Amino acid sequence: MPQSSQVGLTIRQKEPTNLEAAVDQINTFLTPAELFYIRNHFAAPDLKIAEYALRVGGAVRQPLALSYRSLREMPSKTVVAALECAGNSRVFLVPSVPGAQWELGAVGNAEWTGVPLAALLERAGIAADVCEIVLEGADRGIPAEPPLPPGAISYARSLPLNKAQQEEVLIAYQMNGRELRRDHGYPVRAIVPGHFGMASVKWLTRIEAVREPFQGYWQTSDYGYWDRVEGMPVRRPLAEMPIKSEIFRPRVYETVPTNQVYEVFGAAWTGESEVTEVALSTDDGRTWVEAKFLDPAQRYAWRRWTYEWLTPQQPGKYTLLARAKDACGRVQPDHHDPNLGSYVINHALPIEVFVRD
Amino acid sequence: MPQSSQVGLTIRQKEPTNLEAAVDQINTFLTPAELFYIRNHFAAPDLKIAEYALRVGGAVRQPLALSYRSLREMPSKTVVAALECAGNSRVFLVPSVPGAQWELGAVGNAEWTGVPLAALLERAGIAADVCEIVLEGADRGIPAEPPLPPGAISYARSLPLNKAQQEEVLIAYQMNGRELRRDHGYPVRAIVPGHFGMASVKWLTRIEAVREPFQGYWQTSDYGYWDRVEGMPVRRPLAEMPIKSEIFRPRVYETVPTNQVYEVFGAAWTGESEVTEVALSTDDGRTWVEAKFLDPAQRYAWRRWTYEWLTPQQPGKYTLLARAKDACGRVQPDHHDPNLGSYVINHALPIEVFVRD
Repeated sequence: MPQSSQVGLTIRQKEPTNLEAAVDQINTFLTPAELFYIRNHFAAPDLKIAEYALRVGGAVRQPLALSYRSLREMPSKTVVAALECAGNSRVFLVPSVPGAQWELGAVGNAEWTGVPLAALLERAGIAADVCEIVLEGADRGIPAEPPLPPGAISYARSLPLNKAQQEEVLIAYQMNGRELRRDHGYPVRAIVPGHFGMASVKWLTRIEAVREPFQGYWQTSDYGYWDRVEGMPVRRPLAEMPIKSEIFRPRVYETVPTNQVYEVFGAAWTGESEVTEVALSTDDGRTWVEAKFLDPAQRYAWRRWTYEWLTPQQPGKYTLLARAKDACGRVQPDHHDPNLGSYVINHALPIEVFVRD
Repeated sequence: MPQSSQVGLTIRQKEPTNLEAAVDQINTFLTPAELFYIRNHFAAPDLKIAEYALRVGGAVRQPLALSYRSLREMPSKTVVAALECAGNSRVFLVPSVPGAQWELGAVGNAEWTGVPLAALLERAGIAADVCEIVLEGADRGIPAEPPLPPGAISYARSLPLNKAQQEEVLIAYQMNGRELRRDHGYPVRAIVPGHFGMASVKWLTRIEAVREPFQGYWQTSDYGYWDRVEGMPVRRPLAEMPIKSEIFRPRVYETVPTNQVYEVFGAAWTGESEVTEVALSTDDGRTWVEAKFLDPAQRYAWRRWTYEWLTPQQPGKYTLLARAKDACGRVQPDHHDPNLGSYVINHALPIEVFVRD
């Protein structure tokens, strides 16, 4: 017989490459690159280290053009951060909404190494009236959904200046102690801990200090949500990840034996706070128990948890739910907020399993 | 640490339930129900054995209404048959097309037990001019895609009379020796070996002998393809599965070590013939080797195969392809035929893997 299965990724979209982890294969605190989800907007550019340059410009005293080597020679910092795609768990929305039908695996937790963005901004000397920092990647194309731009555009996102200046925001060149893989932004990407993955621009080639809020495609049309001003709907860019937990095992629609101890396993993460509690229900929310953490609370990293479930004696379909809380007292909602459209799916997700003799 | 992973299913659509197997978890000749894909068109009906009745009517001498018990008392037959969803592997189509984005797992091979449809037709006595047998399920609703019918319709498909009278076509009540699960058609479903899964109508409650070709929604609009008559495009219903092989391991985008023996594993199946050969390429089709079968050739069942691949010394991205041949000399094509729309994706599918030190 063939050997037992290896880790791999599930295709949600073939081109551009959009792949997710089978979360039931996750065990470790740090997600190996082999299991880390890939969310590309266009074909992955093939950048060469020898030719690579990172330009820092806009409202700065001293524009910079940094080679890969000069970046590597600057003081580095290492941060563990969970990245989650803003559309992760979209397949749980009923009725279904457009976009890649991510299940649970568009999330991962890795150790990132690079130069703090703040150090580059410091070196370039940003003007006093700068409000945002725009990060632009080398990946280009025409987006799939209207309003379509007049031609190909580069993937770009902005950060509010106060977040851009936090020391945890990195211009990273390593993931888990190794060079980035091409699909993860080789040779250089941004890492914006606490924000959805869309902020961590891959194949980063340009950093621009701007004096007015950036109104790019992925800031307004895509990766946005509806807020209200004086009762009128207005678009806002997605940014911070809210509190969320996921059950990694059992897998959705898994068959588990009756009357046995099953170790339920998952992880929880949040934005600018720490995960403090995970409650688990094995009866569709009627009763809740507290899960046990496997990792200490650490801002920006996920926190794995476990619970020994004595499975029912009565065969049937059971629904498991996990609900996390963070140090700001924020708890996962019971339902998805329709103003968030096809994003921010952080409500307690129903994991239906079959209990069988 | 939590226990190692169990089998389960990947959500492609939450409601109606559309789930596929992670094919890298497949080992056995018979696919357990836990790993068998689910393709539902509407919510699964909750049928009770005590109230269940199967009506046989239309152009027959003696209409029948059979209880579950009376079906079970008739002589039974057991058949091993692979069922594959006609849209399986759709996620490999570039650019993407509408419909559930199945990868490789909307296929399974099981042992089905039931009463031959031919025995019921014999008992009812079909008229001499009957041309098709319509199978209708208890699942009802309004389909997602136009042309929308005026109201809710039941899922129904027809079979040409000559196929319906073949002894392998079953009115089945068991899968792998156990009662059908609800999502697989409990208590009774059709099994049409050699045809795509759409023919094996679940929650079967009505069999109708008809004198003209059935023009239902899933016969014309959906599960159809474009043929030509005198140069003019005409719709035809999908039916027989063509020859196809799939690589189950390595999984797509799996990372495998350099310079080691890796046991490539997969399965091949076909419609009204037997699989006779599987060729494997590990260099994107430049060279081919012959795989070794693990199962004998058996009409309607899949045939597992394996190949010991010595992985390259040179790290990089490699593309694996498998190409099967059947006893009629039919070989998988290199590309998908656009006349087949979003169905019949049986070309040699590229399995891209990363070879790493």
